[in-house]
Amino acid sequence: MTVRQLSVPALVDACVRLAVPAVGLWREPVAEHGLAATAKLVRDAGLTVTSLCRGGFLTGTGSAERARALADNRAAIDEAAALGTDTLVLVLGGLPAGSHDLVAARARIAEALALLVPHAAERGVRLAIEPLHPMYAADRCVVSTLDQALALAEPFPPARVGVAVDTYHVWWDDRAPAAIARAGAAGRIHSFQLADWTTPLPAGALTGRGQLGDGHLDFRAWRALVEATGWRGHIEVELFNDGLWARDGVAVLAETASRFASEVF
Amino acid sequence: MTVRQLSVPALVDACVRLAVPAVGLWREPVAEHGLAATAKLVRDAGLTVTSLCRGGFLTGTGSAERARALADNRAAIDEAAALGTDTLVLVLGGLPAGSHDLVAARARIAEALALLVPHAAERGVRLAIEPLHPMYAADRCVVSTLDQALALAEPFPPARVGVAVDTYHVWWDDRAPAAIARAGAAGRIHSFQLADWTTPLPAGALTGRGQLGDGHLDFRAWRALVEATGWRGHIEVELFNDGLWARDGVAVLAETASRFASEVF
Repeated sequence: MTVRQLSVPALVDACVRLAVPAVGLWREPVAEHGLAATAKLVRDAGLTVTSLCRGGFLTGTGSAERARALADNRAAIDEAAALGTDTLVLVLGGLPAGSHDLVAARARIAEALALLVPHAAERGVRLAIEPLHPMYAADRCVVSTLDQALALAEPFPPARVGVAVDTYHVWWDDRAPAAIARAGAAGRIHSFQLADWTTPLPAGALTGRGQLGDGHLDFRAWRALVEATGWRGHIEVELFNDGLWARDGVAVLAETASRFASEVF
Repeated sequence: MTVRQLSVPALVDACVRLAVPAVGLWREPVAEHGLAATAKLVRDAGLTVTSLCRGGFLTGTGSAERARALADNRAAIDEAAALGTDTLVLVLGGLPAGSHDLVAARARIAEALALLVPHAAERGVRLAIEPLHPMYAADRCVVSTLDQALALAEPFPPARVGVAVDTYHVWWDDRAPAAIARAGAAGRIHSFQLADWTTPLPAGALTGRGQLGDGHLDFRAWRALVEATGWRGHIEVELFNDGLWARDGVAVLAETASRFASEVF
């Protein structure tokens, strides 16, 4: 998503040329290029697929809507397996129109997870619950903290349900370090993503995730927190940024790789 | 601030005509009309001044900057006393340019509070620490939760330092109800403010606070939480909203009073 202006083949080509060893994919561009074709492309290129984004959106109320959401998540699990990644990232959904009830929405998520886990187990896929920044609680994700995400994950085996730690969403939270320690000790950190916090936020608050080093986050400190739990894995950089999307995708990928080297290590 | 388009005399006149018994004031319009003149105006009108907004901005680093901030807060305390309110609301400030350190910024606030409390005690004013929504953590307020605000307040007597509970800032937080119970039991709820959460957020994320009833918040439930602690006081409606500011101020005040009656009680 950081370089959504690149087609899947262009992305894979750029990763290979820039020695980026692993990539997180999103469902829409994968579908556009074709699932099997994408799987073959990344496999032939020797790229690791770190995760597939995204399932989720499990807060709806009507039975038809809920059945559609579950079917879509099962399809996403299948797609993750086909792409050779073990991780499907879940963005869980906001409040239905007119709803005032965060607690009930979170309860519907818990119910839906129980229905999805058996299918994930069959496919060898783990679900990574991503808490989103509280500014998205109404319209995108009623799960706003790592503590809440862990509470949803804990009824299930760590190999099936864990959390996605995205610095953009949790950096403000003084309880995040303790939650990371707890998640890591339990083997529940299934994804670790980076974006910087820059202001002012753009209208809609969605597409202002800063390039690493442009904002207020200390990525070495966040990496140290995660790796102190024994976690070792590929770290993703996930930027939604109108400015970056307007530029040449290969140049943005090269810049991101350079910032990753200088800001994270 | 809900009707910032009204001058202080127009505001006081509208409150009287609409039977709004109490009003929270901001320093800038008070200064514009004159402190003594405003104090006389509200007193003669029989209006209660619920609070003065705002002191704070205590996260700066240089000694000159910190001395200026402390002097400004002492002046704000004096202004609150002159206006006949016992409550100064504090918005504590964001990260200095280039800073990555929320923890150090919060520590500077704690130090500054210790320097301000004696002056507040002399004037009979209490300081209300307002946690702001986490989307403002970088640029406006590094204190993002009621738990954090309470931790800053607790070293001081409840009659001197407490918290401001603003639904807009805390509604997403599953720990807010427990924090309200704790704050109320300790006599530390010094201000209770309402605004609704509506989406999409405008650019800058500052001026999209919704009119009561337009968004996702259940104000009866929030009032019940606060009043369950034994708290009784005037409830403020504080809306920063470009749409409301563009309308006739008296009409907005009348609408707000009507929504207050229908949504909160």
